[in-house]
Amino acid sequence: MDLVSLADVRAAATDIAPTVLRTPLLPATWDDRLWLKPESLQPVGSFKLRGATHALARLAADRRERGVVTHSSGNHGQALAYAARAAGVRCTVVVPEGAPAVKIDRMRALGATVLLVPPAQRQTEAERVAAETGATLVPPFDDRRIIAGQGTVGLEIVADLPDVDVVLVPVGGGGLASGVSTAVRELRPSATVIGVEPALAADAHESLTSGTLTSWEPERTYRTAADGLRTNLSELTFAHLTERLDRVVTVSEEEIMAATVRLVREARLVVEPSGAVALAARLFHAAELPPGRTVAVVTGGNIDPARLAALLNP
Amino acid sequence: MDLVSLADVRAAATDIAPTVLRTPLLPATWDDRLWLKPESLQPVGSFKLRGATHALARLAADRRERGVVTHSSGNHGQALAYAARAAGVRCTVVVPEGAPAVKIDRMRALGATVLLVPPAQRQTEAERVAAETGATLVPPFDDRRIIAGQGTVGLEIVADLPDVDVVLVPVGGGGLASGVSTAVRELRPSATVIGVEPALAADAHESLTSGTLTSWEPERTYRTAADGLRTNLSELTFAHLTERLDRVVTVSEEEIMAATVRLVREARLVVEPSGAVALAARLFHAAELPPGRTVAVVTGGNIDPARLAALLNP
Repeated sequence: MDLVSLADVRAAATDIAPTVLRTPLLPATWDDRLWLKPESLQPVGSFKLRGATHALARLAADRRERGVVTHSSGNHGQALAYAARAAGVRCTVVVPEGAPAVKIDRMRALGATVLLVPPAQRQTEAERVAAETGATLVPPFDDRRIIAGQGTVGLEIVADLPDVDVVLVPVGGGGLASGVSTAVRELRPSATVIGVEPALAADAHESLTSGTLTSWEPERTYRTAADGLRTNLSELTFAHLTERLDRVVTVSEEEIMAATVRLVREARLVVEPSGAVALAARLFHAAELPPGRTVAVVTGGNIDPARLAALLNP
Repeated sequence: MDLVSLADVRAAATDIAPTVLRTPLLPATWDDRLWLKPESLQPVGSFKLRGATHALARLAADRRERGVVTHSSGNHGQALAYAARAAGVRCTVVVPEGAPAVKIDRMRALGATVLLVPPAQRQTEAERVAAETGATLVPPFDDRRIIAGQGTVGLEIVADLPDVDVVLVPVGGGGLASGVSTAVRELRPSATVIGVEPALAADAHESLTSGTLTSWEPERTYRTAADGLRTNLSELTFAHLTERLDRVVTVSEEEIMAATVRLVREARLVVEPSGAVALAARLFHAAELPPGRTVAVVTGGNIDPARLAALLNP
């Protein structure tokens, strides 16, 4: 399978520069060998803006006027809506009925057309829109342009901390981990890139350990509070991670919550549970990690305020 | 009075670069003419690290070994402790009895010696330590080195947004506003620099309107939740602001709280009320401000987690 290259990631970095925030590395005050990469600070609150912006930038001129479409109730939908607005391209997001009103409102505020459908019809409805209108379908991770865009996180890490030893990256569908491992392995071959998953959604761990792409049923993965990491790998991301990721460490729900609270209290970052798993690995599984200068990618900050309040006031 | 110059601020920028985070400008998703300067992301959670680091860098070699001392229960104490540790200099912080244990613990974790004294004895105790040990007293704002260090916020704003039209900066003791107005007025003369104060601690507004340095009693200023802004100006900061600040806008307690919540919910920043006053001016007093590309300085993020929870869950 043809994998994304460092050159692809570098090209993406140029494309996304006008729209995407170049996030700084934040030194952790409690650990002098740890830095945080706060993608929660992106305008839509997650790294997903990188891939979505890159996909928009790569649209052929004759496709631009027909717009883009995706299906997502989560961060990718908001990211695509924001990126499309920035690029002056129409955007449709197919959302399952029952999705939080605040997310729907945000996508509409960004100018997207939101189509509500029964959950099981999400994908077919998005495909119908694409077929009928000529809109380009932009998937959340199973796409080379998306992987290259997310990989810019890795470029920035090595640029800001050239002697980085360990990069900890959350794994959901695997787009971010595929892109980051692509960039870091080439630019800093001595560094170790480790994926982090909730133990309750450890399909990537199982897939990479067994060497066979394995899916976990939604009934299993929906037990984790890290809702951004319930997705399974695709053939494309599995191929990248098999080749480029060193391994996957899993963390418990209690560890994820403790890391979320740590980020709020000590780093003053509002994060969602999915965004805290990399730090959870550093805090609670240090013995399973190589020593040295470590970066934990904090992927997103879209947490319900009432839930955040409950976490802070146990 | 000899005021701090742009050259002083530039020299400070060089001095502090190894220790202080160069914060990015975050575009506000709800207002395409607004950017946030999130100093809450500094390692100790506030811009105070800039001035403290600069003061340490300017210590004469023969003073370094005798250490530094200050009196503060707030962000300056933590900032000086962090900067002193980074510089390899001993640090003593005189703290009033009754200060929150978490703040004392943090200063001790940073290696500072903490002396607890009755509130009325703070200053005399710090002066006694300085006299007896030869430690250099580093005040929180009434100091040219501190003003020059805080002014680096202004340098970075103009570097990142060269066509900025309006800079909104909170005013407590006035060190930050003095430094920022020094840098911005020289680098971008067409820009307006506006101070923002709680209406309940509007001593700077009164002083600058009347042309006479006016102090407000603690009984008055302690009514505001913006605890970092209860301080009065000094002769030195009053002189800077008289010359360089365009004017002061005041905001209500309700507006401050609404702006705090907005920053948590929409910008994913954990902020303290003092850190939200500049945004409060933009949100609720736009008619009193010039139009154009505006930067609101978010000064700090050290809020009690239980209080943050209460704000999010009214």
